[in-house]
Amino acid sequence: MRTFLDRLNITKTTLLLDKSKAFANIEFMAKKAQRCGVRLRPHFKTHQSAQIGEWFRQHEIDAITVSSVEMAQYFARHGWRDITIAIPVNLREIDAINQLAQKVTLHLVVESQHSIDFLITHIKASVHIWFKIDIGYHRAGIDYGKTAEIVAMAQAVQQAELLQLAGILTHSGHTYKAKSADGVAEIYRQTFDRMQAVRTEIAAATGAKIEISIGDTPSCTLVDDLSEVDEIRAGNFVFFDLMQVHGQVCAFEQVAVAVACPVIAIHPARNEILLYGGAVHFSKDTLSDSAGQALFGQVMRADEQSWGEPVPGAKLVSLSQEHGIVRADPAFLQQTKVGDVLLILPVHSCLTANLMGDYLTLDGEVVRSMTSKKY
Amino acid sequence: MRTFLDRLNITKTTLLLDKSKAFANIEFMAKKAQRCGVRLRPHFKTHQSAQIGEWFRQHEIDAITVSSVEMAQYFARHGWRDITIAIPVNLREIDAINQLAQKVTLHLVVESQHSIDFLITHIKASVHIWFKIDIGYHRAGIDYGKTAEIVAMAQAVQQAELLQLAGILTHSGHTYKAKSADGVAEIYRQTFDRMQAVRTEIAAATGAKIEISIGDTPSCTLVDDLSEVDEIRAGNFVFFDLMQVHGQVCAFEQVAVAVACPVIAIHPARNEILLYGGAVHFSKDTLSDSAGQALFGQVMRADEQSWGEPVPGAKLVSLSQEHGIVRADPAFLQQTKVGDVLLILPVHSCLTANLMGDYLTLDGEVVRSMTSKKY
Repeated sequence: MRTFLDRLNITKTTLLLDKSKAFANIEFMAKKAQRCGVRLRPHFKTHQSAQIGEWFRQHEIDAITVSSVEMAQYFARHGWRDITIAIPVNLREIDAINQLAQKVTLHLVVESQHSIDFLITHIKASVHIWFKIDIGYHRAGIDYGKTAEIVAMAQAVQQAELLQLAGILTHSGHTYKAKSADGVAEIYRQTFDRMQAVRTEIAAATGAKIEISIGDTPSCTLVDDLSEVDEIRAGNFVFFDLMQVHGQVCAFEQVAVAVACPVIAIHPARNEILLYGGAVHFSKDTLSDSAGQALFGQVMRADEQSWGEPVPGAKLVSLSQEHGIVRADPAFLQQTKVGDVLLILPVHSCLTANLMGDYLTLDGEVVRSMTSKKY
Repeated sequence: MRTFLDRLNITKTTLLLDKSKAFANIEFMAKKAQRCGVRLRPHFKTHQSAQIGEWFRQHEIDAITVSSVEMAQYFARHGWRDITIAIPVNLREIDAINQLAQKVTLHLVVESQHSIDFLITHIKASVHIWFKIDIGYHRAGIDYGKTAEIVAMAQAVQQAELLQLAGILTHSGHTYKAKSADGVAEIYRQTFDRMQAVRTEIAAATGAKIEISIGDTPSCTLVDDLSEVDEIRAGNFVFFDLMQVHGQVCAFEQVAVAVACPVIAIHPARNEILLYGGAVHFSKDTLSDSAGQALFGQVMRADEQSWGEPVPGAKLVSLSQEHGIVRADPAFLQQTKVGDVLLILPVHSCLTANLMGDYLTLDGEVVRSMTSKKY
C-alpha cells in the first residue's frame, strides 16, 4: 500500500501535523465554548505558532493564553491584542511587561500580596489581574481556603489605579491522571465549587463581580456543561497526545501530531528498532504502560492519508539525546528495514512541539513556530 | 554579601556559563589526551556552539564529533574540517552527507551490512567508516561477539573505493551508573579488551590497521591511562552536570553551567519555592536522591565570583512546562523572596544547553549556539 509518507520527503526526524485533525479539535472546543456561553482563551504554549494561531481566528477567538512574556511578545507582534500570561508574574520582567501593557490588553496572574505591592509600585499601564488559586493540584497558587488573604489581595487591587481586578484562575492538573470522564467530572465539580466559594467571599467583601477561569484540557474536553465558568484556557486539545489518550480524554485518531523517525538500526536479538529520534526531539515526559514500564511514545501505522491505528506492542521504551529505542514483536521487526520511517505519537505534544520548532503538514507545507531554529 | 548575580541583569530563566570552569575542563582533557598519546575528538553535541568550539582550538584540537548531519553542517560552516557523525548513519540524509563529504573529512558510523551496501551504491565522495560496536550498553551497535559478521563488513568496506575503513567505535554509557572510579575503570578495562579482540579479528582477516575510539565522559575523565585506545570522543566534560557529580565523575565546583531561575512564588506550608524554570528550560532528565525521590536539579549558593556550594536540602523536585518546584528547609525559604534568582545545577547539561540555546557568561557576554532562538 502506498501511504502518505510516500508523498513527503522525510530525510530526518520530523514533526508531522495533520491539519484536518487540528481543525476538528479546534472546532470542537470553539463550538462547545459557544454553546456553553464561555470565553475560549486557548493556551498557545502548545503550538507556539502564529500560523496555527490564525486557525483559531476563524472561530472568532480573539483572546489567548501564553506561558511567558516572550511568548506574549511574539503573539502581540502577530496581531493578538488580548493576552493572559498564565504563570505567576515574574517581577524581573517588569520592563517588558510595561511595554506589552501599552500595546495589548494584558492579563497578569498573581498569587501573593508581595507581587501586588510590587506591581502597584512599578506598573505603568493598565493591566488585568487574576489571582491564581490552588484548588488542590499544589503546583502554583494561593490555597482556596485562605479567603482572608485572598480578600485582602482583592481589596489592594481594587484600590490600585492601574490594576483591574479581573478574576480568579486555576489549573486542575490532577485531571490528567483521573483516567475517566467521571473522574474528570468529579474534579471539575470540586474545582468549580471551591472557585465559586472564593468568588462569593470576594464579592461579599468588595462588591466586585469577577470571573472564574479554568485551564485543563481534560475538564474542557470531557465535561459537557461548562456554563458555570466564565473562561476556559485549554491548550493541549489542539494536538492532543499519548498522555491524553491514556487519560481517556481523546481517541488515538484525534491526535494531530506525530514524529516521523528514520530507522537507523535493527536489533532482532532483543526485539528492538533503533530510531533517529531522541530527547532533543521528543523531550522526556513518560507514561507507564500496563506492565509499569516507562513509555515515551507509541508506534502508529502509516495509512493512505495519515497515521492510522497503533501498531500493537510497538512502543518507544527509551530515549537518549538523539537515539530512541522501539520495542516491538518479531513480526513487526521483520517488515521493518534500516532507512524506513516510523511514526511515533509523542507522550506530551507541547514539549515535543517546543523542541521541534517546525511542523510539516501532510500536504508538505512547513509551519513555523517561535522556536523554529534558524541558525 | 554582594554576589556575581548583582553584576548580571537576570530578567528570566537564563543559562549561565562559567568560562573559567569550562576552560579548566577543556584543558584537563586536552592535556590528558596529549599525555596518553590519544586523539581527543570532543563531542560538540554538549555545547552546540561555534564560539565554544573555538576554545578547543587553543589546545590544537582539529577533529570533532557531532550527533547529527545538521550539527556537522553547522560546524563545517564554522571552519571544522574533520568531523565524525557519531550515530548510526541515517540513510535518508545521503544527499546532505554527499555534500558534506566533498567539503570536510567525514567519518560515518555503521553497524550493518545493509548500510554498507547502501553507502557503496550511493556515496559520491570518500568517507571514513567506523563500525559501531556494542560492548554491553545495548543501545546501538553490533554485538562485539559477532566477529564473523564484523569481519565480513570490514571486507566489504575494504573493497569499496570511496569507503575508508577507519576503526571501531563504542560508547560505554553504563559508566554513567558505575558511581565510583573503580567501577568505571572496570567497565573501561572490559570495553578495551572486547574492542581489542574485535580489532585483532579484523586485522587477522583483512590485514587492516584500524583504530579504537571510545566516548563516555566517565572513562575519559577517571581512567588515568588511556594510551591503549586511539581516540576519545567525550563531550559532556566541557560543562559536566549533576549526573556526573552523582556518578562521582566530577566535583560540584567543576560544573561549568547553572540555570538562573526567577522565584515566582513561595509556599511555606509545603516548604516549596516555585521557579520560572521548567521542562522547556531544563528538559526532564532525572536522578534519584538518596531517599529514592526524583531530582531535577540542585540549588547552589551564589558567591562573589560564581556559584559556590550546594544549598543543603534544597532540590528541584518537579518540573512542568515552565514551572519548577524547589523543596527546601524553612530557613532557606525564609531568606528567599519572590523576585530573587535561584541557581540550579542541571541534571543533564547537554539537554539543558540544547533547550536554552544561548549562554550568558559571568562577565555578561552572550554566547550563541546552533539552537539559539531568533524568532
